[in-house]
Amino acid sequence: MNEKNIEESPLKQRLRSIIFGTDTPEGKAFDIALLVSIVASILLICLDTIDSLHNNYGELFLIGEWMFTIIFTLEYVLRLYCSQNRFHYARSFFGVVDLLSIIPTYLALIFPAANFALAIRVLRLFRVFRVLKLLRFLADGNLLLKAMLQSSRKVFMFFFSVSLIILVLSVVMYVIEGPNNGFSSIPKSMYWTIVTITTVGYGDITPQTPLGQAIAALTMLIGYSIIAIPTGILTAEISHEMVKVRDLRKCSNCGKKGHDNDAQFCNHCGSDLETLDSLTNP
Amino acid sequence: MNEKNIEESPLKQRLRSIIFGTDTPEGKAFDIALLVSIVASILLICLDTIDSLHNNYGELFLIGEWMFTIIFTLEYVLRLYCSQNRFHYARSFFGVVDLLSIIPTYLALIFPAANFALAIRVLRLFRVFRVLKLLRFLADGNLLLKAMLQSSRKVFMFFFSVSLIILVLSVVMYVIEGPNNGFSSIPKSMYWTIVTITTVGYGDITPQTPLGQAIAALTMLIGYSIIAIPTGILTAEISHEMVKVRDLRKCSNCGKKGHDNDAQFCNHCGSDLETLDSLTNP
Amino acid sequence: MNEKNIEESPLKQRLRSIIFGTDTPEGKAFDIALLVSIVASILLICLDTIDSLHNNYGELFLIGEWMFTIIFTLEYVLRLYCSQNRFHYARSFFGVVDLLSIIPTYLALIFPAANFALAIRVLRLFRVFRVLKLLRFLADGNLLLKAMLQSSRKVFMFFFSVSLIILVLSVVMYVIEGPNNGFSSIPKSMYWTIVTITTVGYGDITPQTPLGQAIAALTMLIGYSIIAIPTGILTAEISHEMVKVRDLRKCSNCGKKGHDNDAQFCNHCGSDLETLDSLTNP
Amino acid sequence: MNEKNIEESPLKQRLRSIIFGTDTPEGKAFDIALLVSIVASILLICLDTIDSLHNNYGELFLIGEWMFTIIFTLEYVLRLYCSQNRFHYARSFFGVVDLLSIIPTYLALIFPAANFALAIRVLRLFRVFRVLKLLRFLADGNLLLKAMLQSSRKVFMFFFSVSLIILVLSVVMYVIEGPNNGFSSIPKSMYWTIVTITTVGYGDITPQTPLGQAIAALTMLIGYSIIAIPTGILTAEISHEMVKVRDLRKCSNCGKKGHDNDAQFCNHCGSDLETLDSLTNP
Repeated sequence: MNEKNIEESPLKQRLRSIIFGTDTPEGKAFDIALLVSIVASILLICLDTIDSLHNNYGELFLIGEWMFTIIFTLEYVLRLYCSQNRFHYARSFFGVVDLLSIIPTYLALIFPAANFALAIRVLRLFRVFRVLKLLRFLADGNLLLKAMLQSSRKVFMFFFSVSLIILVLSVVMYVIEGPNNGFSSIPKSMYWTIVTITTVGYGDITPQTPLGQAIAALTMLIGYSIIAIPTGILTAEISHEMVKVRDLRKCSNCGKKGHDNDAQFCNHCGSDLETLDSLTNP
Repeated sequence: MNEKNIEESPLKQRLRSIIFGTDTPEGKAFDIALLVSIVASILLICLDTIDSLHNNYGELFLIGEWMFTIIFTLEYVLRLYCSQNRFHYARSFFGVVDLLSIIPTYLALIFPAANFALAIRVLRLFRVFRVLKLLRFLADGNLLLKAMLQSSRKVFMFFFSVSLIILVLSVVMYVIEGPNNGFSSIPKSMYWTIVTITTVGYGDITPQTPLGQAIAALTMLIGYSIIAIPTGILTAEISHEMVKVRDLRKCSNCGKKGHDNDAQFCNHCGSDLETLDSLTNP
Repeated sequence: MNEKNIEESPLKQRLRSIIFGTDTPEGKAFDIALLVSIVASILLICLDTIDSLHNNYGELFLIGEWMFTIIFTLEYVLRLYCSQNRFHYARSFFGVVDLLSIIPTYLALIFPAANFALAIRVLRLFRVFRVLKLLRFLADGNLLLKAMLQSSRKVFMFFFSVSLIILVLSVVMYVIEGPNNGFSSIPKSMYWTIVTITTVGYGDITPQTPLGQAIAALTMLIGYSIIAIPTGILTAEISHEMVKVRDLRKCSNCGKKGHDNDAQFCNHCGSDLETLDSLTNP
Repeated sequence: MNEKNIEESPLKQRLRSIIFGTDTPEGKAFDIALLVSIVASILLICLDTIDSLHNNYGELFLIGEWMFTIIFTLEYVLRLYCSQNRFHYARSFFGVVDLLSIIPTYLALIFPAANFALAIRVLRLFRVFRVLKLLRFLADGNLLLKAMLQSSRKVFMFFFSVSLIILVLSVVMYVIEGPNNGFSSIPKSMYWTIVTITTVGYGDITPQTPLGQAIAALTMLIGYSIIAIPTGILTAEISHEMVKVRDLRKCSNCGKKGHDNDAQFCNHCGSDLETLDSLTNP
């Protein structure tokens, strides 16, 4: 490792700290520029699907698309160049995503099959997570994530029970309403049940028989009530995590615990508090 | 009881521990295989209701249905054979469900009345709960269940009040809108009120008069607001139960309370903590 | 008062304790019978509005209606007879409701104007609250009511802000979409905004212009987010009230506080705990 | 400043305390009268958009509109007259809003372009906030605002994640359903995704293909689940703020903390408690 660093040119080292790093001002600027480029290129793909805009500005969109593709290709080559282990990068999750985000535009030169290439081109969005890995280091994200992981077992049991309820209600509605009223199969009936239990209620399929409407009303009341359960679980976990984080913020001078997330000084003796991030992100 | 055990063949005892028990690895494997079979047989019933699939793969589905029916019949016979008290099993809830899940396929040989047999065949789903009784022993389920039981009296009062509101609003809307605008009877008007107050909003029946729309808007705002009440009740109960469970986790060495659900060692003196399950599931 | 009691016949006193009181077994039985009668008479009115049932069982419903009217008339006369101050009762809220619940059926003999009489006949429902005053004495109801009163000021401010948001969005949508797309006036536009912000979403009026759809999407996201606010307020209040009620449950032997709502004995010293109701309902 | 006060006529000083101040009874009365006028003038604009009312009472509405405009003009002139620094007031946010609320009616004399003038006329609504600044001083508003600010970073991260999910689902649905089923462009598909994920569910665009319906069902379940997250965050924050506010309410006699928001006397020693407002609004 040490030997490798000696071989590398200072330019390569500097490039790596800019492209892969997030600590230097240049590294942060690069990440922000990349985030803006990704969002802009996605926006361009979205707007290009509107017929009236495509007809008027189609060529402009094409130029923009090629510009972003060239930028991302350049970035991919630079990443390959300055990474310490090129094969490792090329085979990593982000390496594959980086490659997938530039290939479709080149492919479109040869096979102009619009829709499929589009679907892959939008994978570009996953590159956003490359920049977002920054957020992982924020205390708030950690707290939320921890609360969600802690409650995941309870939430899984909740969704398991909901699935059973959905299946039973779907079969009952399929038997009662039948194909004549739009409940043409059990999977279709499950689609209706999910539309109803989540209180979305499109109205493309609605019960027509009195008994069907009564069971539909029951389904709605079930959906309306059980929405309380995941909220209750998650709230209790977040509350608990927040208390724990505050208890971690102990003044090293007087020992008082329970300071606020954003407190800079101990509210008991006035001495400087350590930052929270160092405590919650070991 | 002892005498009975002496009479029993070791095979019968072993079968019982596999089929009814959940402690041995074989018992767990049997339960998982059963769970998979039940889910697969239900899935098969669901897919068979899709016309295009039924036309193409109908025979395959029929073969699968008979295969599962034979498996479940075999299982039922084995359960009957190795249970200590056969009449007790046959008359128990799960005994009846087990029987009901195999009868319809045999009946369909004689009377091919599709829909009704289907409805009963899906009762098979209740057999899932046989396997799920395992979940009862998980601490999380216990906590959730306890919180729901503790809050059931408050939630009942909430639903009682909501029922009164729904009835009053239904009558008012029936009088205002009348049969010409789709509010053809008070029960139908109640269906509309439930669709609206739960924020489902199909749109199959909508108020047409200005006064009706004003009261509809009021109904929506009521539904939107009171959704907070059961959430508040349940969250407060879950929070309280979680604190209580944590307080139960007392270190037997130093006496410190309030350890996390997943903590293995006391975070004060480092000694091993008893498992939570033994505490919350006496 | 004392003199009055001396004049009264024991029958009258006993009747009063049955009809108005809730402490004796007879008083409770009377209240339950009354509750059942009210619910049954309302159910009958509801079912009578269904055309097919009205055509087949219309005469049965009429007989039932007259039966209940005679029962309620008898009850009204008895209440008048045995109340200590007849004018006071007749002019009280419940006295007026009791009278209003029997008059419409008699009026229908003279003026058979169905709908209006129906609307008043359903006022009968308010009589349910006469029986429900019992619930006021339940600790859970008290806790919920107190939490709602405590949070009412915050909830009022929330609804005031929501009203402003609704008004602004309505005007903006009226200007953008205009009468051609169903937004025929600002009140109609407000109806649409409430349908959208409460996530009901009938779909009878939907935005057609791209800008309108963008603002509609914003409206939905606002509605989706701010639903969290009343829930948060109420949950925090209920949580606080529950802790306070538990703190009130102090063991008179060892002084330990914080017992559960349903605890019968102190979990520290084992002595009998006073009932909660006497503490929270002074 | 002192010199300026000496120059001013007592009338001007008194007018200023009435118009800008909120401490004197006259100042409060003025604010309430202003609030009523603003709400009434907005109501009038709203009702005027209903065709039937406009045709019958159009002239009455016009007279009302001019009456309110003259009142607000008078108020604006008085504010200009009695403010200590006229240019400062005229250029301030509320000064501009005050002016904007009277100009459109005068402009309508010259250019009768209804819709645009209407949109500006409704800016009048922002004047409500002038009166509402009073509410800022209420402890409840402060607590709510503080809880929302404290949780804003977490809520922002939540909405960022939701935006990503919406974008990915929109593209997937656009590729699957395509323009033939109403998903004519990615922005339109985003409109559908937001309608679905917020559980509004208009039903103007609904998935037609089985795969599209499956992904729609997934979208609904996601929307139904993640509604719990902002609720959890906000509830935990409000809970924490409420505990903090109660801890601030310390009895100056015996030192006991944790009194209720509305407590007047210490529940431990009985001495008078300071008002909460002075503590939370420094």
